[in-house]
Amino acid sequence: MAGVIPPTYADVESAAARLLGHAHRTPVLTSSRVDDEVGARVFFKCENFQRMGAFKFRGAFNALSRFDDEQRRAGVVAYSSGNHAQAIALSARLLGIPATIVMPHDAPAAKVAATRGYGATVVSYDRYAEDREAIGRALAATRGLTLVPPYDHADVIAGQGTAAKELIEEVDGLDALFVCLGGGGLLSGSLLAAQALSPSTRVYGVEPAAGDDGQRSLRSGEIVHIDTPDTIADGAQTQHLGELTFAIIRREVDDIHTATDAELVDAMRVFASTLKIVVEPTGCLAFAAVRRLAPELAGQRIGVLVSGGNVDLARYAELISRPAPAR
Amino acid sequence: MAGVIPPTYADVESAAARLLGHAHRTPVLTSSRVDDEVGARVFFKCENFQRMGAFKFRGAFNALSRFDDEQRRAGVVAYSSGNHAQAIALSARLLGIPATIVMPHDAPAAKVAATRGYGATVVSYDRYAEDREAIGRALAATRGLTLVPPYDHADVIAGQGTAAKELIEEVDGLDALFVCLGGGGLLSGSLLAAQALSPSTRVYGVEPAAGDDGQRSLRSGEIVHIDTPDTIADGAQTQHLGELTFAIIRREVDDIHTATDAELVDAMRVFASTLKIVVEPTGCLAFAAVRRLAPELAGQRIGVLVSGGNVDLARYAELISRPAPAR
Repeated sequence: MAGVIPPTYADVESAAARLLGHAHRTPVLTSSRVDDEVGARVFFKCENFQRMGAFKFRGAFNALSRFDDEQRRAGVVAYSSGNHAQAIALSARLLGIPATIVMPHDAPAAKVAATRGYGATVVSYDRYAEDREAIGRALAATRGLTLVPPYDHADVIAGQGTAAKELIEEVDGLDALFVCLGGGGLLSGSLLAAQALSPSTRVYGVEPAAGDDGQRSLRSGEIVHIDTPDTIADGAQTQHLGELTFAIIRREVDDIHTATDAELVDAMRVFASTLKIVVEPTGCLAFAAVRRLAPELAGQRIGVLVSGGNVDLARYAELISRPAPAR
Repeated sequence: MAGVIPPTYADVESAAARLLGHAHRTPVLTSSRVDDEVGARVFFKCENFQRMGAFKFRGAFNALSRFDDEQRRAGVVAYSSGNHAQAIALSARLLGIPATIVMPHDAPAAKVAATRGYGATVVSYDRYAEDREAIGRALAATRGLTLVPPYDHADVIAGQGTAAKELIEEVDGLDALFVCLGGGGLLSGSLLAAQALSPSTRVYGVEPAAGDDGQRSLRSGEIVHIDTPDTIADGAQTQHLGELTFAIIRREVDDIHTATDAELVDAMRVFASTLKIVVEPTGCLAFAAVRRLAPELAGQRIGVLVSGGNVDLARYAELISRPAPAR
């Protein structure tokens, strides 16, 4: 069965070939003011400029590109209230595949509308009474749909790895790379790319301080499950790593750091005022950790994966209006 | 005397050579969602990612690069409360030239601090009682400083033209290019580049509806002076075009359009929510006009110069929180 064998760097390369001409090759931004503040050279890989506003397009498009004719005809199902839903919906539209997205009944109207706007069928569920994974599996079984999970899937991981591949190919001699961590799709894909292309680059995951299951999993050697963490980083409100992502992370990652919501807001304000880019809370995780760890990174060349920019405008305005939190 | 002879495209090429390795080659962003909304292919040249956050760095650095040894020793003077001040201050620091900036006594503390942060000396004046141009000229005369005006100077115009040059070289077959218009430095430089590199591309200036002196000047054939216009586009609150800029604009421009403050806010929100970039009000002028003129632009390839991203964060948050104005 596709998707359960851990991917390798060869899969990242194949994914890059499939994404060529479909995904944006996103720009790498730098800022001498940020460099002065951090005391290091920082290279921002801006996946907030990716199609549908987040790196998730890479994994979704790669996974759907590998569907056989029967799978394409029957369609794809995914459960997500966030970027994965829109990534699957857009990729399915581009590839002419019917898409069904399982979303909570109280998902923001704008997100439901955006998903429908890409031509997907939205199935609602009661997030307090029903299990979205079970609904997704049931739809897959009864209608012959192929389920594409948000992170624990070889093709998804391989697709996500293409962002780090592009960054490492464009920027020589990175000493370290910081990547946000939710379910681990982006981090595990980045690890495959870094290990193959720049083995001396240290790679760090960064997760919300309120949801440090990744850090605890790494320390304990087994996947730790937690309650849904209370954090503004809605893209990293995962309860546990995946089997495939953890297998890679455990083997390759240098360490896992955390960032508080106050640090995320602080980073978000620097992104807006200095780099002039809109970054969603989850996309601020990596840079927040770099800012905190700056003394240890002095003089180094640092890569930062900016994962996405999908945030409600009113909410965004409220966050950047906050006075900078005490450091 | 340097600066009073109208520049040509050869000067834009020389400026590009001087800026190589000093100015950022800013990315060109596209969005299929914007394309769908506008009904055209739109290419955004993102000068909000330029050094110090605006295209003004190009003209300032080019002008200061041409100083002779005596001018470099004596230093530069400029009057501005906005991006030109910071562009001169940063360029002077990079080139080791002392800089004096004449700023109004009630300029925002953050802007004064930023200008001082680049190592410039700030001279305050009372904007209600004193004439900044006279103060600038007096400092130039008594201390031997070289005055670099914000737009009506051949080296400044030639430097600004390098942004459009990069865009036209990167994107083939533009049918039209939209450029914001204050004093005319960016527009006249863009006209030189377009005329030389892509003469079939129509080039339009876009100024605030509250300050339509450019449009009126074009219609009447002579430079129209107005009171300082009341608009959120603070970078385009100029009272008249320059002699040099008008000479080029009058000869080359296809037309001049205007945009209301409500249209600027609307464009600013699209920049944030769809393109994920922070753009200052003046930087929204060109795109606002494209959105309004969309029916006439159907199916075309359109370039949009995004001039800068320097806006106070609290102010920015307030603007993007506003409900979209009626269209």
